[in-house]
Amino acid sequence: MNRNINYKQIAYLGIPGSYSFIASNRYFGKGIIMIGQNSFDSVLKIVRNNTDFAGIVPLENSTSGSIAEVFDLLLKYNLSIVGEIFLKIHHHILSKKNVKNGNNFKQISLCYSHPQAIMQCKSFFQKNPQIKSVLTSDTATAAKTLSLSASSNEIAIGSNEAANIYGLKILKKNIEDNKKNYTRFVVVAENKNRQGNKISLVFSVKHVPGSLFKALSPYAKYGLNLTKIESRPVFGKPWEYIFFLDFEIGKNDKKVNLIVSEMKKYAQFIKILGRYEKGRTYET
Amino acid sequence: MNRNINYKQIAYLGIPGSYSFIASNRYFGKGIIMIGQNSFDSVLKIVRNNTDFAGIVPLENSTSGSIAEVFDLLLKYNLSIVGEIFLKIHHHILSKKNVKNGNNFKQISLCYSHPQAIMQCKSFFQKNPQIKSVLTSDTATAAKTLSLSASSNEIAIGSNEAANIYGLKILKKNIEDNKKNYTRFVVVAENKNRQGNKISLVFSVKHVPGSLFKALSPYAKYGLNLTKIESRPVFGKPWEYIFFLDFEIGKNDKKVNLIVSEMKKYAQFIKILGRYEKGRTYET
Repeated sequence: MNRNINYKQIAYLGIPGSYSFIASNRYFGKGIIMIGQNSFDSVLKIVRNNTDFAGIVPLENSTSGSIAEVFDLLLKYNLSIVGEIFLKIHHHILSKKNVKNGNNFKQISLCYSHPQAIMQCKSFFQKNPQIKSVLTSDTATAAKTLSLSASSNEIAIGSNEAANIYGLKILKKNIEDNKKNYTRFVVVAENKNRQGNKISLVFSVKHVPGSLFKALSPYAKYGLNLTKIESRPVFGKPWEYIFFLDFEIGKNDKKVNLIVSEMKKYAQFIKILGRYEKGRTYET
Repeated sequence: MNRNINYKQIAYLGIPGSYSFIASNRYFGKGIIMIGQNSFDSVLKIVRNNTDFAGIVPLENSTSGSIAEVFDLLLKYNLSIVGEIFLKIHHHILSKKNVKNGNNFKQISLCYSHPQAIMQCKSFFQKNPQIKSVLTSDTATAAKTLSLSASSNEIAIGSNEAANIYGLKILKKNIEDNKKNYTRFVVVAENKNRQGNKISLVFSVKHVPGSLFKALSPYAKYGLNLTKIESRPVFGKPWEYIFFLDFEIGKNDKKVNLIVSEMKKYAQFIKILGRYEKGRTYET
């Protein structure tokens, strides 16, 4: 819980019980007003248009990789990362009935869930090829849809919390393919108050050999630890790339401006996405 | 077409008309036997077990990012990248009937497609929230499923080629959110014959500040152009990362071994994923 950040309302993807909702609860505690949205674009747009809002969005998952859309939206809406939290994601098979069927899902014809959750549970669907998937905007909406359905041969994939909220039973636990399935969420806001021990930035380099290497030289010079680097092609400009970078720094370290000005010698463009406290990991 | 690579059969994801099928056709020409599979794991497993097979798999998309699962499977099955091809992906709304409805999809209740395609066409689903999605293992299977369905209020999202093969009409063209929507496919095989002007490798560095920077120093020293760098956390080993790297090199340049041996001074682990000709881009 990070009570030091005082936003009045939090925008998140989905409805109560979604993984973003859980991340928000763990990060802010339960006393805050949370406003569910049906797309990442809506989450970030509402934060952009309301200075007393923060948003919480997933940035990357250890199974399915970076969520390119969220990186693009952070740039589009010119928002800052002000916090970070990791969730260990467990996906469960949710059902309206408490059927004691072991691993027998032959009666099941339909499963509600979010595409990311389905892609993280591929082996379940390979073992049960008769189950069709119906996509919902988040896993909690899947659970809610199932709870309102009249059909008895349907399931949903979602969290423990979604099962509790929508009165569903857990038929099978932990069906995620990768048992170390983590999602990194970030808190985003208009806040430009840069404090904390972790920094995210984005930059592009001139198209000359060695320019990326030179742009990274301040990190070696100051002995800083890069925790993420990822290149992304620039749409419409073949052979141009932007790089997303995370690094750790002492909490009160003032050398960030120095690093940025040294990088600028080799970078065409550079923007700090945020300075924030490195996130803790929570179970779901 | 790259007739210099003589594999007898090609494994790909899906059925005729899938994007992997189209990539294979463009790369190998139409004379080769192609065997559709229903998962990336099956594609790479069949290549691993049959030395006269190659496989074709997507590695990254400009909208949805890297496909982490495929990178993991390349390592799991110890296969090499032997070729590369880029497709500009256009998604169309396919229908059994040639309805002149403009942008009115109010009658439509169900859409068949692959989760990646659906995630690349989010604005269409936001504008038409009554349309539920049913997932298939690839977009051509979506088109085929639609062609066999008795219901009249269903559509599929897929390629022009899938529409032709399964006798469907195109109701609306190019519904992808990003009009510069490219997918990078690679050809994988047991072939260790390393020729070409592009190299992909994976490495990890010792957990000391500056080690990534030092591992990259040979690229600056030899003036080589990095075209991709991406860190991935190592599952179960918090704070350890592996890096995927692509770089371009002269076709007959012999300095690859030199670079690898210089990187080894700073890398814990290093593996060349493949040397191959830089891919061309085709329309779909």
